[in-house]
Amino acid sequence: MIFETIITTVNQSGEPHVAPFGVRYESDLIVISPFKPSSTLENILSTRYAVMNLTDDVRVFAGTIVGKPHPELLPAQLVSGVRLASSLAHHELRLEKVEEDDPQRPRLYLRSIHHANHAPFKGFNRAQAAVIELAVLVSRLHMLSREKVEAELKYLQIAIDKTAGEHELEAWSWLQEKMANFYTKE
Amino acid sequence: MIFETIITTVNQSGEPHVAPFGVRYESDLIVISPFKPSSTLENILSTRYAVMNLTDDVRVFAGTIVGKPHPELLPAQLVSGVRLASSLAHHELRLEKVEEDDPQRPRLYLRSIHHANHAPFKGFNRAQAAVIELAVLVSRLHMLSREKVEAELKYLQIAIDKTAGEHELEAWSWLQEKMANFYTKE
Repeated sequence: MIFETIITTVNQSGEPHVAPFGVRYESDLIVISPFKPSSTLENILSTRYAVMNLTDDVRVFAGTIVGKPHPELLPAQLVSGVRLASSLAHHELRLEKVEEDDPQRPRLYLRSIHHANHAPFKGFNRAQAAVIELAVLVSRLHMLSREKVEAELKYLQIAIDKTAGEHELEAWSWLQEKMANFYTKE
Repeated sequence: MIFETIITTVNQSGEPHVAPFGVRYESDLIVISPFKPSSTLENILSTRYAVMNLTDDVRVFAGTIVGKPHPELLPAQLVSGVRLASSLAHHELRLEKVEEDDPQRPRLYLRSIHHANHAPFKGFNRAQAAVIELAVLVSRLHMLSREKVEAELKYLQIAIDKTAGEHELEAWSWLQEKMANFYTKE
């Protein structure tokens, strides 16, 4: 089972990096497979720490895909690192082990050494889910047919029209702009 | 903005009823529009109370659509009523006002008089969102073309194949069975 989260890391100079990651829970460890090379991978290998943010602010997911400046961050509690100000909850993670079976995507096993809840889950919102789906599509435009992307966009738009709030509409507009730019250049 | 939640109510004899509802937050009130007649509407009008459950167990949403026996319930804390055992959080609600502009769907304004968190949000899961979308489709099969439903099912299946856990697969199989039965009878 994969959960879509935001992983925040810092480099040796303390510069933050914010990236969306699908994570797996494996017994008491959290597993991510960052691509090589990537800032998240370099930062975790050099600091041994990361923060997993559970947020319902879909602008963070869309923002990382379209290259917006990173969202508001706060210092982590226990580890040298940062967390999203908008997290509903966050876990501070220590690197336990690295598996390199796949040379392109090493598998990192991390242990939660601190956990905090900041705000309650408000329920499923179909527009939030639609933004996540569009973010996945937009990150793969170069691999997908325009026809397929536009058909799926049309379907996802229904949930946006019916259930979105301001954050979801903002994230949606960023992703649509990115799509429009991509197809203009093509 | 609409959140997909589970509303639990009881009738005068204490018999529980479990139903999925899209809710809106309007300033400090929670608004739902149940159809007339419906058990949720009758129960709230007669007891003046309801419980809003925020759960990530999508089997509860799928189960109510396909007619499974209701899931495990626990007594509410403050009001005469019940909550889902699987809730990440729940609100106990008191009826404040009823607006009857739409005779088919009166609008109920409820105030949260007690709130409790039970488990943290684990992050977005695309399969959970796919189950919610299929539940919406399955509840509207009589109004939608089979072609449209099957095209959307095919798209939603991707997130199921990639990110589902056991609960999501179970809920998905219930909804698919319901669809199969509907189209066999047609």
